Amino acid sequence: MSKILFQAFKSTNQQLNGHGKRNAGVLKEALQEIDDDQESDIYGSGPLIEDFQDKMAKYLGKEKAVFFPSGTMAQQIALRIWCDQKGIKKVAYHPLSHLEIHEEDGLKELHHIEPILLADKDRVIELEDVQNMKEDISCLLLELPQREIGGQLPEFKTLEKISAYCRGNGVKLHLDGARLYEILPYYGKSAAELCSLFDSVYISFYKGIGGLAGAILAGEEDFIKESKVWKRRHGGDLISLYPYIISADYYFEKRISKMDQYYKETKELAELFQQCHGVSTKPEIPVSNMFHVIFHESKEKMEEVLIEIYEKTGIGITAYVNAINDNQCGYEVTVGDLYSQIPKNALRNLFELLDERMKGN
Amino acid sequence: MSKILFQAFKSTNQQLNGHGKRNAGVLKEALQEIDDDQESDIYGSGPLIEDFQDKMAKYLGKEKAVFFPSGTMAQQIALRIWCDQKGIKKVAYHPLSHLEIHEEDGLKELHHIEPILLADKDRVIELEDVQNMKEDISCLLLELPQREIGGQLPEFKTLEKISAYCRGNGVKLHLDGARLYEILPYYGKSAAELCSLFDSVYISFYKGIGGLAGAILAGEEDFIKESKVWKRRHGGDLISLYPYIISADYYFEKRISKMDQYYKETKELAELFQQCHGVSTKPEIPVSNMFHVIFHESKEKMEEVLIEIYEKTGIGITAYVNAINDNQCGYEVTVGDLYSQIPKNALRNLFELLDERMKGN
Repeated sequence: MSKILFQAFKSTNQQLNGHGKRNAGVLKEALQEIDDDQESDIYGSGPLIEDFQDKMAKYLGKEKAVFFPSGTMAQQIALRIWCDQKGIKKVAYHPLSHLEIHEEDGLKELHHIEPILLADKDRVIELEDVQNMKEDISCLLLELPQREIGGQLPEFKTLEKISAYCRGNGVKLHLDGARLYEILPYYGKSAAELCSLFDSVYISFYKGIGGLAGAILAGEEDFIKESKVWKRRHGGDLISLYPYIISADYYFEKRISKMDQYYKETKELAELFQQCHGVSTKPEIPVSNMFHVIFHESKEKMEEVLIEIYEKTGIGITAYVNAINDNQCGYEVTVGDLYSQIPKNALRNLFELLDERMKGN
Repeated sequence: MSKILFQAFKSTNQQLNGHGKRNAGVLKEALQEIDDDQESDIYGSGPLIEDFQDKMAKYLGKEKAVFFPSGTMAQQIALRIWCDQKGIKKVAYHPLSHLEIHEEDGLKELHHIEPILLADKDRVIELEDVQNMKEDISCLLLELPQREIGGQLPEFKTLEKISAYCRGNGVKLHLDGARLYEILPYYGKSAAELCSLFDSVYISFYKGIGGLAGAILAGEEDFIKESKVWKRRHGGDLISLYPYIISADYYFEKRISKMDQYYKETKELAELFQQCHGVSTKPEIPVSNMFHVIFHESKEKMEEVLIEIYEKTGIGITAYVNAINDNQCGYEVTVGDLYSQIPKNALRNLFELLDERMKGN
C-alpha cells in the first residue's frame, strides 16, 4: 500500500514539501557556473574548501570552521573532543537526538561515550532538566529545532540561561544546528548571535539549504584543529569534497535569504491543515519551516484518501504516512521552494477536498 | 624552493605523471551524459548505488559490495568486523601500510585494534613473516602493490601460500587493493582470480581509475551487511554519494582496459630514467603503473636541475622531490593518460637533457 502512495505522489505535478527532486540536476545546476579549471580541494586544503570554511565561520561568528562530509561524523567528533578535554566520557542530549536514534550507536560503539537522555520524548529540554541532572557531563547537546517532535524550540531566554549555567559549571554547549537557518526568523536573531551561546556548532547543507550533502563544524581554533585529526581518523578527509562544497555554497547563496519566506509560508500551511476536519499539527504554531501533520485516521484509510486527492488535484501532500496508532498517522512537513509555486486557488481547492474526505464525504 | 618547483611544474604544457589535473572538469566530464532526472542514491539505497555495487561485486568475484566515501573508512571497518568476529583485537600489516602512516591512528583510536607490523620497511611481506608471527591475529592485511616502497609485489605463488596458510589457521585475509587494477597485467590474472585468495577486498577509484574519490569494499553477504552498519556509525552513509559513484563508474569504464598499456609504458619510462647518469628506480623493473625515482643528488640541487629542464622542454617530470638523505632525493611515478600524449622525440630530448645535467654538464 505504501508503495502505491509513493507512486501516486511521484506522479503529481506539484508538491507541498521541499525544494524539488533529489536528482543529478541538483548537482549540475550548482556546477553550471563553475569553470572546468576550478582546482579541487586536496585532503582538506586549497582555496575552494578554505574559503568556504572561512565564510561559514564568519557567518556563525566562530573563529574557525571545517567542512565535513556528514553531520553524523561532525557531531560525534565534537562530543569526543569535549569529552577528552574534560576526561569524562558522558554527554547529555534529548532522547530523540539524531545521535540516539539514527546513527547505529556510533557515539557509543566508536567513541565509548555514554549519553544521558534529558527531558521527556515529547518536549524540548528546559533549564530545569539541565540543573537537575545528577551526572557530571562534558557536553550538553541541544538540537534546535527538535526535529522528531515536529521542530519545537525552547524560548531564547531559556537558551541564554542554559548557556550561562553550562559556562558556570564547566559544561560545554554544542548546537545541533542541522536546521539552524530555519529557526532564525522565529528567534529574530542572526546566526552569530545564536551561536555565541554555544561552544561548538554543526550546520547542514541539505535540509533548508537543499544542497547535496555535507556539514560545517565551527568553534575555536584549537577545537577545529583537533576536529581535523578526527576527521581523518573517521575516513572523512577525502581527497576531493568539492561536489559537496560547491553545491553547499551555491544553494546557501540561493536560499539563505528565503528563510523568512519559508517560515511565513509554513505557518500559513499549518493553518490550512488545522482548518480541515480530523487534522492537527505539532507544534500548533510552527517555529521554523517544519511541523508534523497528524491525521486522525488509520494509515490504511489515509493512504486511500491521499491517493484520491493526488489523482484529483495533481498536487502531492506527502510520499508516506507513518502509523502513530490504530486511529492516527502522520508525516513531516518541510516548506521549501515548491510551496510558493502552487497557485492559491489550487491550494484552497486541495484543502477543501481534504476537509471533505476527512469528514467522510 | 619547493614552491618554485611546484610553480615551474604547473607551468609546463605536458607531464609524465597521471591522468591530468584534479579539477572540476573531471566531475563535469563524468556528468556530461547523465540526465538531470537521474535519481540520487538515498542513504545507500536506490538503483544508482546498488547497480554499481553489484557490478563491482561481480568484477571482484565477491557476493556483495558496498560503496564507501573513502578507503580509510572501508578498511578500518573491514578489520573491525574481522576482529569482532574472532574476539581478538589484533591485525597484521606492513610497517608502511596506509593505516599505519596516513590515518592518524584511526584504527587504534576509534577501534582499539592493535597492529602487528610484519616484514622490514623496505620489502614486502613474505610467507615466512606470516608463519613466524607469534601473536594470534584476526586478520592479515596485504597491500598490493606495496605503495611506499615504489609499488612492489610478492610472487603470485607466495600469495597463494599465504592465503592457504591463513585459511588453515583461522586468520582472515584482507586485500588493500587501492591499486588493484594496476597489478593485474603483471600477475596475468583477472580481478576475481586474485580476489578469490582474500576474504575481503577494498578498491579505490581515484588512483589508476582517476575518479573523484570513493571506494568499494567487497566480501560475503553477512560481512557487507555488517559493514553498512559501521559505515553509518563512521558518518559515511551520506544521503547522496552519487557524485563519486557516477565518476567512479565513468572513469572505470574509460580506463579499466588501459591498465596493460600503462604497465608497458611504466616499464619503458623506468628504463628511460635508468639510462640517465645518477638516476635509479625502485623497483628496478616496475610491476604496476608506478615506481619511485631516486636522484643521486641533493634535493636543493635537483630542484634547480628540474626547473631548468621544465623551462627548456615544457615537460613536467614531478611537482616535488623529497629528500632521502643529503645526497639523494626522489618522487613517485604513476603512469596514466598523460604519458602517451608526449611525442617520442620530445621524451628522448627530455631524458638526454636530464642525463646531461645529472652528469653536471
